[in-house]
Amino acid sequence: MSSQLDLDNIRNVLIRLEETIIFALIERAQFRVNEIVYRPGAFGPALGGVSLAEYCLHGVETVHARMRRFTSPDEEPFSGDLPEPVLPMLAYRDNPLRPNRINVNARLRLAYEREVVPLICEAGDDEQYGSSVVCDVACLQPMSHRVHYGKFVAESKYRARPAEFDALIAAGNREGLRAAITDERVETGVLRRVGIKAGAYSRELNATTTRVCFEPDKVVEIYRRWIIPMNKDVQVEYLLQRGAGEPEAAR
Amino acid sequence: MSSQLDLDNIRNVLIRLEETIIFALIERAQFRVNEIVYRPGAFGPALGGVSLAEYCLHGVETVHARMRRFTSPDEEPFSGDLPEPVLPMLAYRDNPLRPNRINVNARLRLAYEREVVPLICEAGDDEQYGSSVVCDVACLQPMSHRVHYGKFVAESKYRARPAEFDALIAAGNREGLRAAITDERVETGVLRRVGIKAGAYSRELNATTTRVCFEPDKVVEIYRRWIIPMNKDVQVEYLLQRGAGEPEAAR
Repeated sequence: MSSQLDLDNIRNVLIRLEETIIFALIERAQFRVNEIVYRPGAFGPALGGVSLAEYCLHGVETVHARMRRFTSPDEEPFSGDLPEPVLPMLAYRDNPLRPNRINVNARLRLAYEREVVPLICEAGDDEQYGSSVVCDVACLQPMSHRVHYGKFVAESKYRARPAEFDALIAAGNREGLRAAITDERVETGVLRRVGIKAGAYSRELNATTTRVCFEPDKVVEIYRRWIIPMNKDVQVEYLLQRGAGEPEAAR
Repeated sequence: MSSQLDLDNIRNVLIRLEETIIFALIERAQFRVNEIVYRPGAFGPALGGVSLAEYCLHGVETVHARMRRFTSPDEEPFSGDLPEPVLPMLAYRDNPLRPNRINVNARLRLAYEREVVPLICEAGDDEQYGSSVVCDVACLQPMSHRVHYGKFVAESKYRARPAEFDALIAAGNREGLRAAITDERVETGVLRRVGIKAGAYSRELNATTTRVCFEPDKVVEIYRRWIIPMNKDVQVEYLLQRGAGEPEAAR
């Protein structure tokens, strides 16, 4: 089996992403909501009519696209119009996924701007617009990675119980698939671990600096309300698009 | 006195940067040295003759320049040819620094590529070129911030003991200035704290994931050999360029 479907490897990737996500959220929380950065056109025609947040995200993704970031099966872009890589393509001989076109980043960005930012940041405007949107990119990219890694999780689960999944896929049974991929014990474990880590980082910052206002429970809520559900949506969609039957490589 | 010169505030900024730097270094250490990404021209004419690392850094700095990152008195770019901001300028009414042109990023980048990367990464090539240079940007930016924050440290020290510094500045006494800004007890404290934090993060990762090879002592060495000395160089240069006499705002 592809090493990318090995459950230990998947677990390691997801756990490392937790540190990255928690750390990025704490960084963003230094600044106010700064709602103006999410308003399309608020900074005039130089930005082509988009919001400052979208402009910054698109700029960074343009650079990363040239570095072939989005040719990797575990990365999906937020932007639609990205340039070709300047690097030669990697073969990804190891890619265990079926071809798919699943990208929930539009939903993720909306939830992030409208709900996550107001949850973690103080209301109001501190004029730190550039810093805020640079932090936004640093939050959104690993959150997207975490959510879309559901494709690997789903393929791995499929291969462990192909007959069960084949029946659900053939019937287009979305609710059945959602039940089949759900493991509440694992979800509870993720939430507990994320809470412990966020608590440790917050305490560390509180111990060494004089002004930090970040409640670790907020990270747990972000996982519970958005990251875990969107990851499961990706899993269900992936399985439906995947179709029934043996993995390609094994045929 | 400007809040940016308050020693508690300076301390908070520097301490927060420690987490960012440690975390970024641990991320880079996932990949091999990948020496080819630092070789100018190695990826052909599409990159305009520069290395992949420089190409990526320049691309990200271009986006950040448009977000007015480098108009802030505590940020210096690595790239020379950056566009104007698309945001209106912030007044930085609060900027307590004398005008100066101190930027040691060329030296920092060289030390990072030639010495820091081989210290923290396994030798060899794993083809993860894009990921490596994205991590490099994430390491270099906070390291640069940390080093150039010496300007604020120096201005703060100057204002605490103006007569002593005026004499050294007037005499152009570089060694005397270096001695006057050095506090070995503080330096030892920084190294100890950085070691403790790096140990905590590494242990965390070791406890939850199966394969992490990062020795916390390496972060201590990076602070001891490059970050602290370059920060002190910035302090000395700033004081020499600053000149003697009262701060502008107080005249």
